[in-house]
Amino acid sequence: MMVITLKPGTTEKGIEHVVEKIKELGFTPHISRGEERVIIGVIGENAIRSREIFEAMFIVDSVMPISRPYKLVSREFKGETTVVEVKDVKVGGNEVVVMAGPCAVENREQLLEIAREVKKAGAKILRGGAFKPRSSPYSFQGLGEEGLKYLAEVSMITELPVVTEAMDPRQVELVIRYADMVQVGARNMQNFDLLKEVGRSRKPVLLKRGMASTLKELLMSAEYILSSGNYNVILCERGIRTFEDATRFTLDLSTLSLIKELSHLPIIADPSHATGKRSLVAPMANAAVAAGSDGLMIEVHSRPEEALSDGFQSVTPPDFHKLMKGIRSIAKVLGRKA
Amino acid sequence: MMVITLKPGTTEKGIEHVVEKIKELGFTPHISRGEERVIIGVIGENAIRSREIFEAMFIVDSVMPISRPYKLVSREFKGETTVVEVKDVKVGGNEVVVMAGPCAVENREQLLEIAREVKKAGAKILRGGAFKPRSSPYSFQGLGEEGLKYLAEVSMITELPVVTEAMDPRQVELVIRYADMVQVGARNMQNFDLLKEVGRSRKPVLLKRGMASTLKELLMSAEYILSSGNYNVILCERGIRTFEDATRFTLDLSTLSLIKELSHLPIIADPSHATGKRSLVAPMANAAVAAGSDGLMIEVHSRPEEALSDGFQSVTPPDFHKLMKGIRSIAKVLGRKA
Amino acid sequence: MMVITLKPGTTEKGIEHVVEKIKELGFTPHISRGEERVIIGVIGENAIRSREIFEAMFIVDSVMPISRPYKLVSREFKGETTVVEVKDVKVGGNEVVVMAGPCAVENREQLLEIAREVKKAGAKILRGGAFKPRSSPYSFQGLGEEGLKYLAEVSMITELPVVTEAMDPRQVELVIRYADMVQVGARNMQNFDLLKEVGRSRKPVLLKRGMASTLKELLMSAEYILSSGNYNVILCERGIRTFEDATRFTLDLSTLSLIKELSHLPIIADPSHATGKRSLVAPMANAAVAAGSDGLMIEVHSRPEEALSDGFQSVTPPDFHKLMKGIRSIAKVLGRKA
Amino acid sequence: MMVITLKPGTTEKGIEHVVEKIKELGFTPHISRGEERVIIGVIGENAIRSREIFEAMFIVDSVMPISRPYKLVSREFKGETTVVEVKDVKVGGNEVVVMAGPCAVENREQLLEIAREVKKAGAKILRGGAFKPRSSPYSFQGLGEEGLKYLAEVSMITELPVVTEAMDPRQVELVIRYADMVQVGARNMQNFDLLKEVGRSRKPVLLKRGMASTLKELLMSAEYILSSGNYNVILCERGIRTFEDATRFTLDLSTLSLIKELSHLPIIADPSHATGKRSLVAPMANAAVAAGSDGLMIEVHSRPEEALSDGFQSVTPPDFHKLMKGIRSIAKVLGRKA
Repeated sequence: MMVITLKPGTTEKGIEHVVEKIKELGFTPHISRGEERVIIGVIGENAIRSREIFEAMFIVDSVMPISRPYKLVSREFKGETTVVEVKDVKVGGNEVVVMAGPCAVENREQLLEIAREVKKAGAKILRGGAFKPRSSPYSFQGLGEEGLKYLAEVSMITELPVVTEAMDPRQVELVIRYADMVQVGARNMQNFDLLKEVGRSRKPVLLKRGMASTLKELLMSAEYILSSGNYNVILCERGIRTFEDATRFTLDLSTLSLIKELSHLPIIADPSHATGKRSLVAPMANAAVAAGSDGLMIEVHSRPEEALSDGFQSVTPPDFHKLMKGIRSIAKVLGRKA
Repeated sequence: MMVITLKPGTTEKGIEHVVEKIKELGFTPHISRGEERVIIGVIGENAIRSREIFEAMFIVDSVMPISRPYKLVSREFKGETTVVEVKDVKVGGNEVVVMAGPCAVENREQLLEIAREVKKAGAKILRGGAFKPRSSPYSFQGLGEEGLKYLAEVSMITELPVVTEAMDPRQVELVIRYADMVQVGARNMQNFDLLKEVGRSRKPVLLKRGMASTLKELLMSAEYILSSGNYNVILCERGIRTFEDATRFTLDLSTLSLIKELSHLPIIADPSHATGKRSLVAPMANAAVAAGSDGLMIEVHSRPEEALSDGFQSVTPPDFHKLMKGIRSIAKVLGRKA
Repeated sequence: MMVITLKPGTTEKGIEHVVEKIKELGFTPHISRGEERVIIGVIGENAIRSREIFEAMFIVDSVMPISRPYKLVSREFKGETTVVEVKDVKVGGNEVVVMAGPCAVENREQLLEIAREVKKAGAKILRGGAFKPRSSPYSFQGLGEEGLKYLAEVSMITELPVVTEAMDPRQVELVIRYADMVQVGARNMQNFDLLKEVGRSRKPVLLKRGMASTLKELLMSAEYILSSGNYNVILCERGIRTFEDATRFTLDLSTLSLIKELSHLPIIADPSHATGKRSLVAPMANAAVAAGSDGLMIEVHSRPEEALSDGFQSVTPPDFHKLMKGIRSIAKVLGRKA
Repeated sequence: MMVITLKPGTTEKGIEHVVEKIKELGFTPHISRGEERVIIGVIGENAIRSREIFEAMFIVDSVMPISRPYKLVSREFKGETTVVEVKDVKVGGNEVVVMAGPCAVENREQLLEIAREVKKAGAKILRGGAFKPRSSPYSFQGLGEEGLKYLAEVSMITELPVVTEAMDPRQVELVIRYADMVQVGARNMQNFDLLKEVGRSRKPVLLKRGMASTLKELLMSAEYILSSGNYNVILCERGIRTFEDATRFTLDLSTLSLIKELSHLPIIADPSHATGKRSLVAPMANAAVAAGSDGLMIEVHSRPEEALSDGFQSVTPPDFHKLMKGIRSIAKVLGRKA
C-alpha cells in the first residue's frame, strides 16, 4: 500500500482523475480529506511499483509507501487524530468524553434514572447492553430489541447519544436503527464478518480490544472496518488477560498510550470491565485520562447489588459524580476538558 | 440444574411422563440415552427445589444436583465419554482419529492430491478452510462456497468426511450443506450467536478453544451448543497465548487432560496451529496422544513454501506418514488404535 | 496470627508485660507504634486460641485475628499508610517521591552529571545500579564496589539519598555501607534468603514486584522482610509479563491501586522498565501518579544512545524536567505534592 | 563468539597451542571434547574478527561464528546432546531418567521409605528438598542441613544419587558436600550469583525454568553456568504461568521440544509442580516422554494428605509404579528405555 498526498488546493476534478487512475491499475482508493490537503490511500499488492505514475502528476505532492501491516488506521497514513462524531459529540478532540450507563438495560425506569444521573454528572454518551455476551447460556442474555427501544426513547428524553453492542452480523441493521454508535465487544474483536458488516454501515463503531489481542491485532481489526469504508472507529482498551487474578483483567494503559502514537484513531478506556472491582474504577479512570485516553466507558448502576449483570464493578451515581470531578481536574491539567 | 437417572428398563412412556412433568414445572428437559439407562437433565433456576417430586416417582432411580457451572457437558451429567459420529467415523471411542488436510482450500487439484495422501497415511477426516479468519483484511480470505464445493467433491472421491469452518451464523446453513462437521474457530469460541446457530443444527461441531479462554469458558461455550439441542460436540485444544514467543502459542496438554476428567465430550489437539513450527508438529502430536487426546488435527501441504496461508506450520505428506506411524505406536501402547 | 491493640496511653511497662506473655506462650511479637496507639502482632500457629488471655488484660483494647495470608504488611494489621524514611526523604506520605538516575553507574562523571540534573528537576532520591542483573553473562555486569563508591560520593555532593540493588545476600552488608536504601530486583523477589538478609538490616528496602508475581506473592515477599524485623519496605510495580510484546512489560496500575487498599506499605511505579520505550515513560508516569502511586522510579541518561544498559528506555534530562512538571501538576490535583 | 573445530587426531599439544593463542588475543577459551573431535569456543567481543588467524592453523578444520545470543549451550556450538553423569546415572543419553521422591525431606524414616519405593519402581535418582522456597515466611522452610544428612544417608543405603535445591550462594558448598546434583529452582533461575556459584563447582546442576521465563532466558541462565566452567547442566521444564487457573502452571512441552533442537543440553520435565494435581501427573509424564524429554522429576509421598508441603500434587508409591510402567512403554516405542 501507499499514500498519495495531493497539493493544497487540488480540485474535485483533480481528485477524481487520480482516483480513476488508481482504479484503472486495479487498486482500491481510500480518500481522506484533511483541513488543507487530501490524501489518498492506494490498496493492492505491489501498489508501490506504480509509484512513478502518480509522482509524475502535477497535482501530486508526494507518494509514500506504508510500511506497517495496518495501513488506513496508521499515523503514517494520516497524521492528525481522527475526530469521530457520535451525533453531536466529538470523540478524539480536546474533550475527554465519558460514556456511562448500566451494564445491561434492565427496564425503562432503571435506564432513564441512570441516564439522567450520568448526564447530570457530565457523561456525554449513554451506554447500555441490549444484547449481552455471557459465558453461560443460563445467564441473562439481555432484553434484545425491547432494550434497544428503551435506549432510543431514553436517548430522546435525555438527548444523550447511545452506544450499544451488536454481537451478530444479522443484528447490525437493527442496532443501527436505534443506536448512535455500535459496539463490537472484546469477544468479537476478531469476528471478521461482524467487522465487515459494521464497516459497510456509516455509523460510528466502538471497537473493544480482545482480552488476548495484541496492539497489532486490534489495529488490524480496525483496518477491517476502515477498509470496508467506515472511517468512524473509536478503539477501546478494556483490560487483557494475564496471570494476575486479583483484578478481573489487567488494564493495559501503556498499550493505549502506544496506540495513540501509531494510529490516528481515538481510543478510550473501560476501567469497569478491566478491574471488575468498584473501588478501582475511579483510580483507573484517573490513570487512563492521565495516560492520554480520549474518553472513558463507565458502568453505573443505582443499586449495583441488584444488577442483572456485573453489579460488582458498577459504581453508584454519587460515586460517578465524584469520579467525574476527579477526571475533570486531571483533564484540565493536561489542557483538555471533560 | 439437576440430573434425573431413570431405572434400567424404563419404557418410552415412562420417559415421556417425566419429561411432561419437567415441562409442566417450567423447566427444560435434556435427554441422554446410555446403553443401559436414560438420564434426563433438568435446566431451570432452582430446579433442585422440585427434587422430591421426581424422587417420589417409581421409575426414577436418583435425582442429583449438578454443582458445576457447566451442566450438560459435565461428567456429573454423563459418566461415559460421548462418541460423536462424523459420518461413519467415531470420535471419542477407542480410536485416535486424525483429521488432516491443507490450512486453506486453494484449488481442486491441491485438495485432491493432499486428501489422497493423508488418507493413504491413515487420516480419517479431511480438513480444509473455505472461509479463513485472517487478522489482516488484505490476506487471502478463502475461496468461500467454491472451496466448499471442492471439499464436497473430494470427500465423495476419497470417502473422507470433511470438517470446515463457519465464521458467521449466516454461513452455517451453507457450510452444513457441503460438510460433515462444522468447525467453530478459536476466535469465535465466544461468538455466542454462532454457537446457538450450530447448536440448532444437528451436524457435529468441532469447537476450538479460544486463545485466551479458560477450561471453564470452553466448557461453557460447549454448553451453549448442547443446550441448543446439539449433543455432537468435539472440543479442540489448539494452544493458548502466553508470554513465550518461541512458539506461536503454548499447547496446553494439562488442560486437555483435565477436561477429559471433567467433561464427557471428546477432545482433540491441534499441534500445527499451537506450535506454528513444522518441526514441532510430530513431537507434539505424540505428546497429545500420550496425554489422552481423542484425536489430532494436522495441517498438511504438498508444497508448504507455496501455501496461501500458514505454510510455515504445514508438514509434507512424507512427514505426515512418519507422524502417523509415530502416533499409531503410542496409541497402541495406551490400548487405543490410530 | 492476631493483632492486639493496646489502649491509648499504655506505658512501656504495660507493653513489655504483653510482649512477655506472648513470648511465654511460644509466639513471636511484632510491635508497631502509631501516633496514639501501640499495636502488637502475634505470630505463631493457632495464636488466636490464646485470644482470651489477652482480652482479659486491662490495657488491651481489642484482639483481632488476621484473615489474610499476609499479616504484618496488611491494612488489617495497620490501618494508616507507613511512611518510610530514606534519610530525610519521606516515602508514603503526602509527597510523590521521584527516584531518578542512570540504569547503571558507568563512571563518576556520568553519575554526577545526571544526579545534578535530576536533583534540579525535582528528584529526591538518586538511583543507579552497581550490581546489574543481566540475562546474558556476556553483558556489562556493573562496576560493583567501585560503582557503590561513586554513588556514595555523588550522594554526598548532591545531598540526594541513594538507592541501589543488591543481588546476593553476601552483598547486602557492602551495599548498606554505601547506600541509603537497598533494592531487591524483580528477578529476586522470591530470593528468600536475600529477603531475610535485608530483613535483618534496618535500612529501607525497595522491593520490586517479580515479572510473574501476583499481588499476593509480592505481599508475602514483603512479609518475609517485615517478619525478619525490618518494617521499612517500599513496594514497586515495574510491569508484568504478558503476551503483549509491543511494550517490554505491562505496567499493572490496577494492582498497584489494589495494593494500596490491602497493605499499609507505600508503593511506587517504575514506568521505565515497564514500558521499555522512552516515549511511554512520561504518560505512564502521569498515569501512575493519577492511580495513587507514592512515587516513581525513572531512568535518566544524558546520552541514552551511549548507555551501557537499557538506553532505549532512558529519558534525557530535558525530557525529565518536562516529566517532573507533568506529574507535579497531577499530584497537585490529587492534593499531593511532587 | 566463534567455534573452532579441530581436525580429528589433533594432539594435546596442538590443542594447547590454540588455547594459548586465544588467551593471547584476550579471549576466553571453552574446550569441549567429543568422541572424535575437539571443539573450542572463543568468547569475547568481536572474536570473529580474529577468524583468519585460526583458519590459517594446520590443525584447525573450521572456524564458525555463533549467531545466537546463547553460545556454549547452543547446538551450533556442539551438535550432539550432552550426557550429564550424576554419579553413575547418565542423563541425556538413551535412557529416560526418572528422579523421584518427596517434595520436602520431613524425617529419616519418611525419606527412606519413599526412596526404597521409588527405587523399586525404577527411579534412578532421589529428589527431596532440604531448603524449601516457600512464598510464606510462616510455612515449613525445610530441615536444612539435617535434611541434607538424611539425603546422604538414604542415598548410601539405597545407592540412589541425590538431587536437592540450593537457594542461596552461601549454601552451595554445603549442599554439594551431601548431594550429587544441585538444583536451582524456578524462582532462582535468574539469581545470577547463585548461577555463578554453581558454575564454579563441577557438580551437575539441575536448572529449572522460571515460571515467566522464555526459552531464550532459560538458555542464557544455563550459559551463565557453562561460561563459569561447569558444563554439567540439565534443564527442567516445570510449567509457566498463564491465565489458566485450572492447573497450577501450564506445562510447556512445545518449548521443551524446541529446546532440544536449539541446545545440546539434556532437558527433563516436572509434571508434579506444573500441574499441581495428582491425577494429571501420569498423563503429563506420558506426554513429556512422548515429546522427547530426557527425564522426569516426580513427587512421591506415602501419605500425601499428611505431607508438609505440596501434598496435593504428590502421587503415592502404587501410583508411581503404574506411572513408571506407562512411561516405560512409551519410551520403548520411541527407541529409548526408562
